[in-house]
Amino acid sequence: MQTLEVELGSRSYPILIGEGLLGSSALLREHVPARDLAVISNTTVAPLYLATLLASLAPRTPLQIILPDGEAHKNLATLARVLDVMVSNRLGRDCAVLALGGGVVGDVAGFAAACYQRGVAYVQLPTTLLAQVDSSVGGKTGVNHPGGKNLIGAFHQPIAVVTDTRTLSSLPARELRAGLAEIIKYGLICDAPFFIWLEEHLEALLAGEPAVLAHAIRRSCEIKAQIVGRDEREQGERALLNLGHTFGHALESVTAYRSYLHGEAVGAGLLMAAAMSRECGFLKVEELERVGRLLERAGLPAHIETVAPAAALEHMRIDKKVKEGRMRLVLLRGIGDAFVTADYPEGALMRTLETYLG
Amino acid sequence: MQTLEVELGSRSYPILIGEGLLGSSALLREHVPARDLAVISNTTVAPLYLATLLASLAPRTPLQIILPDGEAHKNLATLARVLDVMVSNRLGRDCAVLALGGGVVGDVAGFAAACYQRGVAYVQLPTTLLAQVDSSVGGKTGVNHPGGKNLIGAFHQPIAVVTDTRTLSSLPARELRAGLAEIIKYGLICDAPFFIWLEEHLEALLAGEPAVLAHAIRRSCEIKAQIVGRDEREQGERALLNLGHTFGHALESVTAYRSYLHGEAVGAGLLMAAAMSRECGFLKVEELERVGRLLERAGLPAHIETVAPAAALEHMRIDKKVKEGRMRLVLLRGIGDAFVTADYPEGALMRTLETYLG
Repeated sequence: MQTLEVELGSRSYPILIGEGLLGSSALLREHVPARDLAVISNTTVAPLYLATLLASLAPRTPLQIILPDGEAHKNLATLARVLDVMVSNRLGRDCAVLALGGGVVGDVAGFAAACYQRGVAYVQLPTTLLAQVDSSVGGKTGVNHPGGKNLIGAFHQPIAVVTDTRTLSSLPARELRAGLAEIIKYGLICDAPFFIWLEEHLEALLAGEPAVLAHAIRRSCEIKAQIVGRDEREQGERALLNLGHTFGHALESVTAYRSYLHGEAVGAGLLMAAAMSRECGFLKVEELERVGRLLERAGLPAHIETVAPAAALEHMRIDKKVKEGRMRLVLLRGIGDAFVTADYPEGALMRTLETYLG
Repeated sequence: MQTLEVELGSRSYPILIGEGLLGSSALLREHVPARDLAVISNTTVAPLYLATLLASLAPRTPLQIILPDGEAHKNLATLARVLDVMVSNRLGRDCAVLALGGGVVGDVAGFAAACYQRGVAYVQLPTTLLAQVDSSVGGKTGVNHPGGKNLIGAFHQPIAVVTDTRTLSSLPARELRAGLAEIIKYGLICDAPFFIWLEEHLEALLAGEPAVLAHAIRRSCEIKAQIVGRDEREQGERALLNLGHTFGHALESVTAYRSYLHGEAVGAGLLMAAAMSRECGFLKVEELERVGRLLERAGLPAHIETVAPAAALEHMRIDKKVKEGRMRLVLLRGIGDAFVTADYPEGALMRTLETYLG
């Protein structure tokens, strides 16, 4: 087992990564000390891993809340349902919520924990590659609004992230590819050697080789933990983690969260961010080609025919990175060198959208 | 104008108390610097004070969200409506929300600000005595659940509290009395001389004498600001501010937030907390009589016929102060000396409920 720490003073917490952690009673007893528990999962993950988790938590008998699967259910109605069950089962303020699933389960469960009695403890037990490398770490919780992705939520840090890499063995290939998008993102943001390592190990990752996946997860979590430790509330540097997300969120929003997995939209968004960086003269053409090639090898979508450029632009404008009416974007000066800017030609944005959309 | 400060490091903020502050453009420009604004108010308060506020905020033209009046509307559905309007008007993360009204408006607006884009700034502009002395200060935001009061919410501090005492001139007598319950609470918790001052000035308060009201507001805010500054998240001392509230919340919950104003329920709750403190042998009988007399002079309800003791007990058990299945209560060792305890005879609780309810 590997252990990392997210350093946030009194709210610091460990990220534990290893094979079979969901089956470890001792580990779960140590990191989930609360007496009263609620496990939140979904209809896909619960049949696979809930029994193992419950056995490890025995003799405690957690409340079980099983959500429908999919980003389309990450909304206020689902949150209300979770809170209803927690209230009617009289969970106290000293309870802990366990999020067993992917990014949607983690975001909804974390937001429910943030709101319930103004904040209770929760533990992330991510079962998708995307959740393991990104959404389970850093305390961003929330739900979508028809008007935009993650527009309603809270910063609420978990008390632990327990990543059982064995869960990846059951992950559909499409979900694995979606997770790769976020992993590639870390290389692009601030770690050119990691990007090169990804270029060299992509086939092994796609084949699900445990040791290679474990390295990619660990390095991704390291980068994220460091950035979150320095800028928990996204006053500055943390915005870099949104590389590709302003584009990606718009794609998800326009398609009502039903056509693309979050990671797929981010993959397309990374390509658009790189292309726009090229349009603005920040990124070299060879670098754009390398980005495009790696994303293509990862099987991520490049051209999104079903979304019109104007519709995407409309949704980008309500994104959380808008400041004083001006949309800020994360762009690339090079591979491993992202930055935030509101200083770009509108034409470059429109040309990018028109190239990759519609 | 009087100024107090809630000391919370980087989240410190001022409480400004004075006559006619809603009419001061300069003051509002200084304390509400955001370009994009949303004013949240209700159908009772908006006709009285919204025009004054808008004139002071000109040339900025805030979004206006007017809620129905009353605690019965403090729920997730109202929150969703507020968030819908904010999203569809594309407020950015650098906007500010202004809460113009009483406790319900402040709690809903504050919670909307806490959730919108994972947290935007908000300013409390309390227009009821209760909001001015209690709910506008300290960052507790949230909504009710059919299962219990304030069960869903967030700690989210405002960037300023601007209390225009002139708004009290339009306050119905019933609302004034409800506010007095929270003021009396501060004396009971930790300030015996203030309790004596209240005994001496109750008629002047009921008559709405501005100077006397201003003193009561200032002293109440001072006490609350100090306690919140020491224990923002209610890990310890802040729980004292819930004196009377575990009882009061149960009364509100059982009556579906429709029969009693929050302050009225708290008034009845203070009496029950004092009576139970007497039952447990903590409070002298003369002290209980003084508490009862002051609450009675304030016109607050003592006996709640419409609530059965068993129903109240049921609702108390889901209150946020339950820890490891044991309900903690705030009781009194004397006037000006409250403490939290889970160590009391169950019989004393039942006898208290049976004496004052049903």
